[in-house]
Amino acid sequence: MTDLREIRINESDKIKIHGRTGRQLQPLPLFFNGSGIEVTLTGSELWVELETDSDNLEPWVAYEINGAFMGRQMLLPGVHELCLFRNLEPSEVKTVMFYRELQAVSEDNRCKVLVKGIKLDGELLDPPKRRLRLEFIGDSITSGEGTYGRIEDTVWVSMYMSASVNYATMAARALDADIQLISQGGWGVYCGWDNDVRHNIPSVYENVCGLADGPMNAEMGAQEPYDFSFGPDAVIVNLCTNDNSAFDQPAFTTPDGVSHKQHRNPDGSFVKEDERKVETAIIDFLKMLRRHNPDSHIVWVYGMLGYEMTMTITRAINEYREESGDKNVAFINLPNTTPDTLGAHMHPGPKSHEKAAEVLVDYLRNRFGI
Amino acid sequence: MTDLREIRINESDKIKIHGRTGRQLQPLPLFFNGSGIEVTLTGSELWVELETDSDNLEPWVAYEINGAFMGRQMLLPGVHELCLFRNLEPSEVKTVMFYRELQAVSEDNRCKVLVKGIKLDGELLDPPKRRLRLEFIGDSITSGEGTYGRIEDTVWVSMYMSASVNYATMAARALDADIQLISQGGWGVYCGWDNDVRHNIPSVYENVCGLADGPMNAEMGAQEPYDFSFGPDAVIVNLCTNDNSAFDQPAFTTPDGVSHKQHRNPDGSFVKEDERKVETAIIDFLKMLRRHNPDSHIVWVYGMLGYEMTMTITRAINEYREESGDKNVAFINLPNTTPDTLGAHMHPGPKSHEKAAEVLVDYLRNRFGI
Amino acid sequence: MTDLREIRINESDKIKIHGRTGRQLQPLPLFFNGSGIEVTLTGSELWVELETDSDNLEPWVAYEINGAFMGRQMLLPGVHELCLFRNLEPSEVKTVMFYRELQAVSEDNRCKVLVKGIKLDGELLDPPKRRLRLEFIGDSITSGEGTYGRIEDTVWVSMYMSASVNYATMAARALDADIQLISQGGWGVYCGWDNDVRHNIPSVYENVCGLADGPMNAEMGAQEPYDFSFGPDAVIVNLCTNDNSAFDQPAFTTPDGVSHKQHRNPDGSFVKEDERKVETAIIDFLKMLRRHNPDSHIVWVYGMLGYEMTMTITRAINEYREESGDKNVAFINLPNTTPDTLGAHMHPGPKSHEKAAEVLVDYLRNRFGI
Amino acid sequence: MTDLREIRINESDKIKIHGRTGRQLQPLPLFFNGSGIEVTLTGSELWVELETDSDNLEPWVAYEINGAFMGRQMLLPGVHELCLFRNLEPSEVKTVMFYRELQAVSEDNRCKVLVKGIKLDGELLDPPKRRLRLEFIGDSITSGEGTYGRIEDTVWVSMYMSASVNYATMAARALDADIQLISQGGWGVYCGWDNDVRHNIPSVYENVCGLADGPMNAEMGAQEPYDFSFGPDAVIVNLCTNDNSAFDQPAFTTPDGVSHKQHRNPDGSFVKEDERKVETAIIDFLKMLRRHNPDSHIVWVYGMLGYEMTMTITRAINEYREESGDKNVAFINLPNTTPDTLGAHMHPGPKSHEKAAEVLVDYLRNRFGI
Repeated sequence: MTDLREIRINESDKIKIHGRTGRQLQPLPLFFNGSGIEVTLTGSELWVELETDSDNLEPWVAYEINGAFMGRQMLLPGVHELCLFRNLEPSEVKTVMFYRELQAVSEDNRCKVLVKGIKLDGELLDPPKRRLRLEFIGDSITSGEGTYGRIEDTVWVSMYMSASVNYATMAARALDADIQLISQGGWGVYCGWDNDVRHNIPSVYENVCGLADGPMNAEMGAQEPYDFSFGPDAVIVNLCTNDNSAFDQPAFTTPDGVSHKQHRNPDGSFVKEDERKVETAIIDFLKMLRRHNPDSHIVWVYGMLGYEMTMTITRAINEYREESGDKNVAFINLPNTTPDTLGAHMHPGPKSHEKAAEVLVDYLRNRFGI
Repeated sequence: MTDLREIRINESDKIKIHGRTGRQLQPLPLFFNGSGIEVTLTGSELWVELETDSDNLEPWVAYEINGAFMGRQMLLPGVHELCLFRNLEPSEVKTVMFYRELQAVSEDNRCKVLVKGIKLDGELLDPPKRRLRLEFIGDSITSGEGTYGRIEDTVWVSMYMSASVNYATMAARALDADIQLISQGGWGVYCGWDNDVRHNIPSVYENVCGLADGPMNAEMGAQEPYDFSFGPDAVIVNLCTNDNSAFDQPAFTTPDGVSHKQHRNPDGSFVKEDERKVETAIIDFLKMLRRHNPDSHIVWVYGMLGYEMTMTITRAINEYREESGDKNVAFINLPNTTPDTLGAHMHPGPKSHEKAAEVLVDYLRNRFGI
Repeated sequence: MTDLREIRINESDKIKIHGRTGRQLQPLPLFFNGSGIEVTLTGSELWVELETDSDNLEPWVAYEINGAFMGRQMLLPGVHELCLFRNLEPSEVKTVMFYRELQAVSEDNRCKVLVKGIKLDGELLDPPKRRLRLEFIGDSITSGEGTYGRIEDTVWVSMYMSASVNYATMAARALDADIQLISQGGWGVYCGWDNDVRHNIPSVYENVCGLADGPMNAEMGAQEPYDFSFGPDAVIVNLCTNDNSAFDQPAFTTPDGVSHKQHRNPDGSFVKEDERKVETAIIDFLKMLRRHNPDSHIVWVYGMLGYEMTMTITRAINEYREESGDKNVAFINLPNTTPDTLGAHMHPGPKSHEKAAEVLVDYLRNRFGI
Repeated sequence: MTDLREIRINESDKIKIHGRTGRQLQPLPLFFNGSGIEVTLTGSELWVELETDSDNLEPWVAYEINGAFMGRQMLLPGVHELCLFRNLEPSEVKTVMFYRELQAVSEDNRCKVLVKGIKLDGELLDPPKRRLRLEFIGDSITSGEGTYGRIEDTVWVSMYMSASVNYATMAARALDADIQLISQGGWGVYCGWDNDVRHNIPSVYENVCGLADGPMNAEMGAQEPYDFSFGPDAVIVNLCTNDNSAFDQPAFTTPDGVSHKQHRNPDGSFVKEDERKVETAIIDFLKMLRRHNPDSHIVWVYGMLGYEMTMTITRAINEYREESGDKNVAFINLPNTTPDTLGAHMHPGPKSHEKAAEVLVDYLRNRFGI
């Protein structure tokens, strides 16, 4: 190990960064699941240097070597040097992806994952250039909740979430795509599962990581406006599962004293004015997405935990299309999770993510002619 | 065989009839794929007596014993006595389903399948009562086109169509449901794949089998108004794949000399007024379906051969829902056929039908709480 | 149909015959499951002319067009003209395989399937030349017993047997091989499942179809010595499942008044002298197989209905190898049938045959470097 | 974390130890892949305290929570406190399994994994009692070589080996069994893949971990005679893949100057006297296994990397059975690895292990009537 050379993230443009970042690249904060670094290199050994903190939500990380899942672990507060491989043949070229498993954290202001740099004894080569860039926007499904753990496991802890077993990652690998994930369990496009109207993804979309508040996150750039430099070929929005739940939950009173509640009619259908709030939120969000992603194909994907809002979502998308003349927005259902494909927490398990990825991969292959 | 007893279709209410019929029950015409008879019986032997005719489209039939596929064959013009089983244990109770594989025929006015009766040496028992009744309305997908044959097989002949390998039948078996199929390859909700506006399913829906014209079919009751006695719990509409094709086909001139053509804009999107024709046809068809099926859940399923009309269909369904106040109408995508699941004729193969059935079965299980 | 031309089996060397035959080729008797004819041809239409008879075991037949299963039906006594296809594009080249589903029959002396000829309106081309020739020797497993029907179906009738859903056929299709099947349900290498020592396959192996006795079969050539003209690259023996059963069945008294019974020791193991009878039968059968197939690779495959005789079979094969110096004889287990893969009659179902075929195909691919 | 209580391994009989151990239980050395500890407990948090060392072969470990795989990581030399879970519901009962991924190490005398204890804030309950105890003896296949990594990955490093993706572990989970693994890549029953006759598993079987030499391992008890206290219901031997390779490798000269080489005849078959060395080794090993496991069912499983030694192994087993009168010894093939099921290093991948586990699970279910 005497010959290991340290390279900081900002010292080499051959360290490929995955996930949204603000101005701060050194050390590099990983805000979202799937955020991380990727390097192509020679040498026998590779380390990643990290600094992490957390209170109740410990970050987990995972890594892949040459595209194969290799390790996954919890990181407790402190400074870490993780060896990602050792004793490989020095002259052979390897590609290593290291990424955060845990979704962006809005409930633990101490939670952070900082990549300070890498150490290696070989040379960095050009990192992989991929055919597509895909942005995924979602809720707990896109946060991979329940992709680890037994069906019986129902406590909400960070170890059950992942980017490593996740339809977004599966699609990325199948399509040779780079991805960015912006997701938060329990959040919707209009309101959270519990009628908390503050928990809507559009309100945080325009900042680097609007989900991460508090001074520490601010300092790392989370609150900065995101520069939308990723430039995705497609934006995949997987929202409304929590907007749907809100119709079955009691009212939520926000700190301003206002009570919020989505209602059903006696026949079980949505009360029109409440449904309209969701539609309006969808339309506004589509406008926001288009503003920041002028050339991207936008596809709303929905159904992995039930199809009930399909008509609501499509109504809003149709209205947006007509109003804006923007035809580059589509909708498809992803297959619902069944008892056979269920994971932990009553969430989609690995098989459900595989089936969703199959449908999405086929859709994007046809869309992009690949 | 000396003890075989003949029972005509109209002589016993224990012969369960599948598929639409008019006044004529003796001999029983089977108009649609999936139409047939079902009996639960004792005895060692069962025969079905048939009379068939055809010119270029030979009817095929299939049969199941105790729910397991047993045989499938072509029937050439003539009188047939088919033995469905022999030498089974007389005291054991069996259930046998005999049905037409070939879709309703609109291009061969000689084509017919008449069930004259059955012969048996045992006793007829009450036929199965099932949990659900499902009506499927569709095109070549629902006609099972390409579910038999190799991918390379591209001639349009009757042997490649079926009810035996078909998402509708698979769903029926999984859900314990009785089904009726009304489908026609190449037809749409507004027009056929080739812009022939006469080839729309709504125009034939209200008759027993509006697809089967000519005097012979008329005599068998095909042209009578259907009495809608089936009373489905759900109506599943799988249309618009051909309406979509029409946008890419040359104009079609109907016998009245009028040229018909659906157009695309330069950017590839549908010309609004042409798309509107499809939407209007959908809305009108939903009204027709609701008129005849006042309590049925209606679900439009779409996607097995591409998702392009998803926004069009959902726009129409939403308009219908708002205009009518009828919320008991839904939409879901079925998974698109991929190179791995393709059958003959560039149509969905057995694996594609299986995947579609999985999604539909899950949807209906949730819908009906079973 | 005016232009149909009849060709008798012995009138064209372009009609490929599958299965063992004696001198009589016209009409062509199909003795074994998998026996049949295959033609490559142009034209719009193809018929096969048959004469069949039976008492209690009706023959079933199946056919494939361009390698895809198309139809399967029972044939009752009489003369039949079966149309195998109609209305195909005349200039396109098709390959059609027509074959017997029912195993060779030893319990119904009237049972026969005679192919008299074919009728076509196109031209016969050279039939397919395949990479391998495989001979399968077995019992009910190789007769496909239970590959049709529900798990609950337990009556022994011909409709539950097949060559169409059968590990031998699946292996043939995967390997591009021609096959011959010589099999009989209930028979073993030394004795039948019920200790009937007459029911051993070696006793019938050297005749065309030693299983088919009586004057009618004799006349068709069944009792003639087989000329071993097939010349298989590999002989696959799937026997001993019934030899195993005999240890658990009561004694059987043959017509000569001798009682036969295979015994177990108190600890459940086989009594050595009884086990030795099986070993001797195996060794003698291997000698017989080698005599008639001097260059063939011989592989004994075993396990689809339990592994208990594995040590007995391998002991005999090892003894044969040492004694003869013949190393071209091997053994492999095929995977046992599990509750998930069970078919009718407590026999391997379609999934079990698929799993067995996978193992066998891999074995033969490695063996023959293909 | 103030309330965490430390329990050393030897302080509680509720800490279930997996894998062979000698006298030293505190700290507990984990010698083999699959060796580890298991606890059932309440509380919100669980830690494991470790001390590890290594030179070129870094140990990897994995852990499962309630039977679901949760994490896997490399451990570099040092003292470690790994948190296995945090923030779970204190009153809920969890079961956690922590185990070594890396096979026993014979090439890195510094390599060690010591479990010093656990820390928890709940109570230990009785650990799971399982239906079966299974001992697996093998080579690289049982060491899980190639179960992680891409097919293209061919460097021999510890990260590609595992107990977490391994037919032995899969069988254990399916059968509710405790397992012990004794395996070493490249070793055989008579000699290693390269004709090194010192690399035979029997020579190390009778010590706790005969593979781990040097003073450090001796101190940890590796060189002590094993007390065979595990008492397996079945001993599964998966050896001879390397004995087979030796026939195709050049001679190996052991330190005593003797050259060793297994030879083939010109026709490719094994030279009898060399094959006999393997047979004798098998027979002697079976005697050794029986001596130490008087009541265990012994089954030799073979084929995951080719079937060539099937006749050799069965010949030896038959000879042992006859000579000893011991009938409680069997043989079955496990399915060969195919291009579809290949892992890294030209070794069985996850799918191959799954297929092997299926066959083995079925075999043991039948054997033990479960």
